[in-house]
Amino acid sequence: MTTGQPTAAIRKTTLCRGCWAQMHLPVPIRGPLSLPFKVFGVTTSKMNPNLCTICERSFVRVTRAKEITKEASILFADIRGYTALSERLSPTAMTTLVRAFHDQCALAVWREDGIVNKSMGDGILAIFNFPIPIPDHARHAVDAARQIQRECAERLATLAQEFEPFDSPLGVGIGVHCGEVVIGEFSAGRSDYTAIGSVVNLAARLEGSARPGEVIVSEAVHARVPDLPGGLERRSLTLKGIGDPVPAYVLTA
Amino acid sequence: MTTGQPTAAIRKTTLCRGCWAQMHLPVPIRGPLSLPFKVFGVTTSKMNPNLCTICERSFVRVTRAKEITKEASILFADIRGYTALSERLSPTAMTTLVRAFHDQCALAVWREDGIVNKSMGDGILAIFNFPIPIPDHARHAVDAARQIQRECAERLATLAQEFEPFDSPLGVGIGVHCGEVVIGEFSAGRSDYTAIGSVVNLAARLEGSARPGEVIVSEAVHARVPDLPGGLERRSLTLKGIGDPVPAYVLTA
Repeated sequence: MTTGQPTAAIRKTTLCRGCWAQMHLPVPIRGPLSLPFKVFGVTTSKMNPNLCTICERSFVRVTRAKEITKEASILFADIRGYTALSERLSPTAMTTLVRAFHDQCALAVWREDGIVNKSMGDGILAIFNFPIPIPDHARHAVDAARQIQRECAERLATLAQEFEPFDSPLGVGIGVHCGEVVIGEFSAGRSDYTAIGSVVNLAARLEGSARPGEVIVSEAVHARVPDLPGGLERRSLTLKGIGDPVPAYVLTA
Repeated sequence: MTTGQPTAAIRKTTLCRGCWAQMHLPVPIRGPLSLPFKVFGVTTSKMNPNLCTICERSFVRVTRAKEITKEASILFADIRGYTALSERLSPTAMTTLVRAFHDQCALAVWREDGIVNKSMGDGILAIFNFPIPIPDHARHAVDAARQIQRECAERLATLAQEFEPFDSPLGVGIGVHCGEVVIGEFSAGRSDYTAIGSVVNLAARLEGSARPGEVIVSEAVHARVPDLPGGLERRSLTLKGIGDPVPAYVLTA
């Protein structure tokens, strides 16, 4: 098994799409014109290979603001049963599993023009509609979520067989919500931006209540993507930190 | 109110402590000798101002391994009641709050030679004993946790009054655990390392069950720091993804 080349199926651009969208600045990230930029440390971003490290690390310069309020879709994904699993797996098996999962997530998010903004342990946080503008960002986020589920189901099953027979179900849980978020640099060292706000929190909570193989989307996502694909189930969720039950929709493959 | 200068009380070194500890390589990060390095983009790391960007972004080069297994202490912290809060606060109030919290966390973690490895939303993940070696890392992690609680209590209370009277309690929850973790680059873009494993997961779960103002430490931490300070309460926790109840110790200021 190989962790593969996650960027294989991504349409790669010559110019940084973030710098172009945010500043109308042509920053070459591929081809001969990108060489002088590379000398000065401007390379492709780890958040999305069609962005550059200027987009990634110079939020204030790019947006000309300490933080911006923006409509966006937020996707959280993690491996269900990973806590129980990590008690039994060898370090090698565990890292192979996490790398495979992160690779598949990135591939799907990048195909849909989103960014893998953060990864913490096995989980990831993806943002759609910044810095690459996506008018139909909720649909792109849902499409990315379904791709992650489809591709991970196969890959994680293969990995599971390789390592040991698992008794606990090994699958991915995903939550998607959309609305106004605040994007900016909030960490003490600065230089890495993220999204915060109630939309981000709810997306995380939706993910937390997803069972293996499920994508749970909010009512706001359903309103923006009325023709949600797959088997659709309406579920009322009681979520930590939120008073009233939250209506949500569950997509299953 | 100002977000302040989080590095104010940190003892700053001239050489990168990570490159020295891991490779016995003297990399100047302050003073005239650091200038040629700055030209080539080697500056101080956002994870800890006594580390350089080589330590931060070139894990494989620094450790000469794709991943390493290491004894370390892991600290998770977040703002309790933040989800409920984020529904009501203005973007400005919310970002001020998160910035203040992240600044205080970083200050405490850096004082104890740890790194702020990740921040996601309002939460942070700190690692003690890599890349700066700390023989007594569990004690340092506990000390950082107590500093965060002490300093945040004051600062968040001031902020809370400034914005609006809160009805939900505003405080910080912290979890600390220690043991063997796997450190490596697992995200698809690579170039940012993190720690994974059951120790990391348990630390996150301990934090998740901490009430405002509490530091919850594992039995392993208690064994390494038997003279834990503060009022100590033994608590048996039922944690998501972990079968048996987990014994833990609660430190209150």
